[in-house]
Amino acid sequence: MNFSSKILENAVNEVSQLPGIGKRTALRLVLHLLKQPASQTHQLAAGLVKLVDEIKFCEKCHNISDKDICEICSNPSRNSEIICVVEDVRDVMAIENTSQFRGLYHVLGGKISPIEGIGPHNLTIDSLIEKVKTGTIKEVIFALSSTIEGDTTNFYIFKQLKGLPIKTSTIARGIAVGDELQYADEVTLGRSIVNRIPFDNSF
Amino acid sequence: MNFSSKILENAVNEVSQLPGIGKRTALRLVLHLLKQPASQTHQLAAGLVKLVDEIKFCEKCHNISDKDICEICSNPSRNSEIICVVEDVRDVMAIENTSQFRGLYHVLGGKISPIEGIGPHNLTIDSLIEKVKTGTIKEVIFALSSTIEGDTTNFYIFKQLKGLPIKTSTIARGIAVGDELQYADEVTLGRSIVNRIPFDNSF
Repeated sequence: MNFSSKILENAVNEVSQLPGIGKRTALRLVLHLLKQPASQTHQLAAGLVKLVDEIKFCEKCHNISDKDICEICSNPSRNSEIICVVEDVRDVMAIENTSQFRGLYHVLGGKISPIEGIGPHNLTIDSLIEKVKTGTIKEVIFALSSTIEGDTTNFYIFKQLKGLPIKTSTIARGIAVGDELQYADEVTLGRSIVNRIPFDNSF
Repeated sequence: MNFSSKILENAVNEVSQLPGIGKRTALRLVLHLLKQPASQTHQLAAGLVKLVDEIKFCEKCHNISDKDICEICSNPSRNSEIICVVEDVRDVMAIENTSQFRGLYHVLGGKISPIEGIGPHNLTIDSLIEKVKTGTIKEVIFALSSTIEGDTTNFYIFKQLKGLPIKTSTIARGIAVGDELQYADEVTLGRSIVNRIPFDNSF
């Protein structure tokens, strides 16, 4: 691209470093900002700087937080005996939206992925094991996505936890509520038959 | 969305005000920034603030520029007798990329669009008419997109310029180079037949 302005070119280059945003989209976004009041861009810039400078990761669950201990970990009405292991903050938000879980979380920060160079020690697995060894935890729920990386990570943690006096479980896989059986993939449908539950419990 | 952090929520809200970026995409972008070195976000923020605070619009052609007069207008080797009227900076960049035009531009800043509340006085049309009236300009080329708004804007300017001793022209519409005739729409193909050019000139 042949820019008429170095300042414009620099702004476009910075924006196009974001994932999924190419040069053309970046130019469209930047030209949009130029049409808005400058105060909007100042707020956007300040919000991003504040984010990277002031954000914290909860010392207990490693979730993104404003304080040293996040709101969930510091809430005395949550059940600290159950830990749900998730990949990142989006999974915490998704599970919190269901209002079906009153335990605590442990955010791994990713999945084991040799291809991307992410090993167990790039994640917060050691901290999880330490936490379980303190003895107050009774159940660990694995809630990672069911991909090769997710299964590998589950299995790695499961092996580390073996022998400790806790229950381990994984979230149920099956046909989504409202989905039709004929369009479900075989693996999911197969699992939902094998792991069928008593009809009384299904409401 | 149920955010665990006000700082995160604020950053996501700011980013999701950009056009075409929803809450989920904003969260993905913001989490990406958190995984990068903080310096990258500082550079991004600084680039955007510099953009809205320091960018100028060329006093002659209204194109985005670092200086009061843009590089194209201040280039003595350009032909100041021909003015190409375009909508925004992206059109200038597209035409400059062809290296086929050595005249100057006039950037309208949009098209007349009653639906969006954009009238002739929100654009730089008056400044164009003034410029033409000074008498040094010999040809005005209309290079707006061929939509209803584009055609309306062309026609409005054309009427204003009527009676002035200049040539007006519009860019050629036709089948794109490399395109097959059978896939062209009828309007475009029709125009390319009506406005056919001598074979000698077609190279």
